[in-house]
Amino acid sequence: MSENTDGAPTGVTSPKGFRAAGIAAGIKASGRADLALVVNDGPRFDAAGVVTRNKVKAAPVLWTQQVLTTGALRAVVLNSGGANACTGPEGFQTAHATAERVGEVLGCGAVEVAVCSTGLIGAQLPRDTVLAGVDKVAAELTDAAEGGSGVAAAIMTTDTVPKQAGATDPAGWSIGGTTKGAGMIAPSMATMLSVITTDAALDQPQLDAALHEAVRLSFDRLDVDGSMSTNDTVLLLASGASGVEADPAAFTAALTVVCKDLAAQMQADAEGVTKRITVRVTGAATEDDAVIVARTVARDALVKTAMFGSDPNWGRVAAAAGYADAAVEPETLDVTINGVLLCRGAVVAGDRNDCDLSGKDVLVEVALGLGDGTAEIRTTDLSHAYVEENSAYSS
Amino acid sequence: MSENTDGAPTGVTSPKGFRAAGIAAGIKASGRADLALVVNDGPRFDAAGVVTRNKVKAAPVLWTQQVLTTGALRAVVLNSGGANACTGPEGFQTAHATAERVGEVLGCGAVEVAVCSTGLIGAQLPRDTVLAGVDKVAAELTDAAEGGSGVAAAIMTTDTVPKQAGATDPAGWSIGGTTKGAGMIAPSMATMLSVITTDAALDQPQLDAALHEAVRLSFDRLDVDGSMSTNDTVLLLASGASGVEADPAAFTAALTVVCKDLAAQMQADAEGVTKRITVRVTGAATEDDAVIVARTVARDALVKTAMFGSDPNWGRVAAAAGYADAAVEPETLDVTINGVLLCRGAVVAGDRNDCDLSGKDVLVEVALGLGDGTAEIRTTDLSHAYVEENSAYSS
Repeated sequence: MSENTDGAPTGVTSPKGFRAAGIAAGIKASGRADLALVVNDGPRFDAAGVVTRNKVKAAPVLWTQQVLTTGALRAVVLNSGGANACTGPEGFQTAHATAERVGEVLGCGAVEVAVCSTGLIGAQLPRDTVLAGVDKVAAELTDAAEGGSGVAAAIMTTDTVPKQAGATDPAGWSIGGTTKGAGMIAPSMATMLSVITTDAALDQPQLDAALHEAVRLSFDRLDVDGSMSTNDTVLLLASGASGVEADPAAFTAALTVVCKDLAAQMQADAEGVTKRITVRVTGAATEDDAVIVARTVARDALVKTAMFGSDPNWGRVAAAAGYADAAVEPETLDVTINGVLLCRGAVVAGDRNDCDLSGKDVLVEVALGLGDGTAEIRTTDLSHAYVEENSAYSS
Repeated sequence: MSENTDGAPTGVTSPKGFRAAGIAAGIKASGRADLALVVNDGPRFDAAGVVTRNKVKAAPVLWTQQVLTTGALRAVVLNSGGANACTGPEGFQTAHATAERVGEVLGCGAVEVAVCSTGLIGAQLPRDTVLAGVDKVAAELTDAAEGGSGVAAAIMTTDTVPKQAGATDPAGWSIGGTTKGAGMIAPSMATMLSVITTDAALDQPQLDAALHEAVRLSFDRLDVDGSMSTNDTVLLLASGASGVEADPAAFTAALTVVCKDLAAQMQADAEGVTKRITVRVTGAATEDDAVIVARTVARDALVKTAMFGSDPNWGRVAAAAGYADAAVEPETLDVTINGVLLCRGAVVAGDRNDCDLSGKDVLVEVALGLGDGTAEIRTTDLSHAYVEENSAYSS
């Protein structure tokens, strides 16, 4: 049984075999931290990744997809201050040149270096600034906790807090990770970048399977505004430095805990959030149906505005379930909000005045009465602050 | 060639053979108009309808679906002030009793009377108030323009203006219609009610085909917040009182013009709208793909907030097109906003400063370069007023 982040050290340098750093390279006009490097010192270099399913992929995503085909990574270089998306051949050359420079500094090939970017779409990155920054950040690399927290800070865009998590296993291995993402959080992850490290020894196919399963149950179950980014990337690097071969099932479970922890931090820090909403669907004909119904309710703008207004508007929840592309029968459709059954068989049941939505957390339960499928989707309310941040901030 | 509403009389009493009225029956606490009746005096009574695809259907929708199976209607009774949705057997009995009372007053069967309701989900209608209102509204029936405008006023909920349209054909027949709907405007029409009348003579299957085609190209191409109501209903009643057999193609074209006019009025009056946005997709592999891409861009919360901020954020448009479930190739993806080509082949092109979004109308053009499929979806921006209205108003 692994221990989650409550007790475990967090961040990408908490497992053995990793050094990292984050600096202000001058990409952001604000002068804030904007460039990060994570280095795997081995002895193993197995790696896996999940990238956005958007057909419009940023240059660093196209680069990282290529290098991931080897199943091994020595390093990841990440920048905020620009997404390097919709930037054409020049943008791809910037991503390539960045990986080359990292390879030169570390003494490895560019093909062993993944690149991640986040920020405004459609602007070229200042290539010389990024390349000079690579030299500087490499000089700051450390295996201390400051290395991990430096990365967490350097990848922030509209995030208000850095996000790290970790887990340790009694067998002797550990996992550490960081993420960024506060806007555009979507079914397929969001404008989110995440780097997760482990000192467990696993074969690459096991790493890959573990990462896909953990992402499916965590980042993919977070849906703030239904958008999907050009840049979403989750990378998992394994150094094997613990010298312990991890049991794949135990590793997958621990990795899922870490990813859920990071996703919860993203939900709490999503743009303009005043309510953290969990939509739990039970009794669906299948798990897929449960996900579809939960996601439809979680995305419904009328449900989200009602929650912002602390209004237990179960009618909007029932209506959203009713238009989900899944098996739903009004006769067996119940809606419970924060523990109060408000709707039974698609008919008004309890007293909405009994339902207290004054707190920050809201649990919307939709029972379909058709089978054993269950799923939870996390989302947020739709607030004035969401509108303000996304209309005023060009991203 | 039919003449559209710019010159033609509008409203449900503009065609021959119809009387109508709207009154304040006391259903709304505000004392505003809330009950309407539209009567077809014949000589023909052909009718067609389209109702919500939501699996959670309001009681009046279940009733109206049944009576539409005969293909004939003598009257439609409509109320605002309550949706009669999620109200169980008691709610269905209220809808039935309302149709019965209309039948008694008019001397026809309840099965010849459609019922439409709009307002809050999950509350019973005050049945006695509605039934007494039927007697009162029947006493006010008139074939003058006031009849049509009375209906338009009585079906309003959060609408700020009544909505009517009409068309006349040189062959001697005409069409008149009204609609309500300002919130929850969605792919499958919205919490919208619409009654359209015509004095053309057509066989019922022709009416039915014309209505489905017109709805597909108008109300179904309006998408304000992606929700779908429990109550959406569009009804078409044909009196044949012009004595003219209409050409089905000419009739379908004129009906489509009227429905597009009504949809445009709904877009302009949608909750919290500060921008009227048209998303036009060309070059899609198929028309279905064009609709999917246009709808995905039109629904994207980040696109909608950018428009509220008058920000020509083509990167968000390209990203939304990229996650649409349709064929999209970055290499041939162009984005033009208000006439300025900003993105060519998914790469930054023109100068965003050339793009003027200070006006109320925004045209977003997405050219896919893959085929001949085209489609337009109308939507609105996502504004502070939208959040305010939908968090403060329980509906």
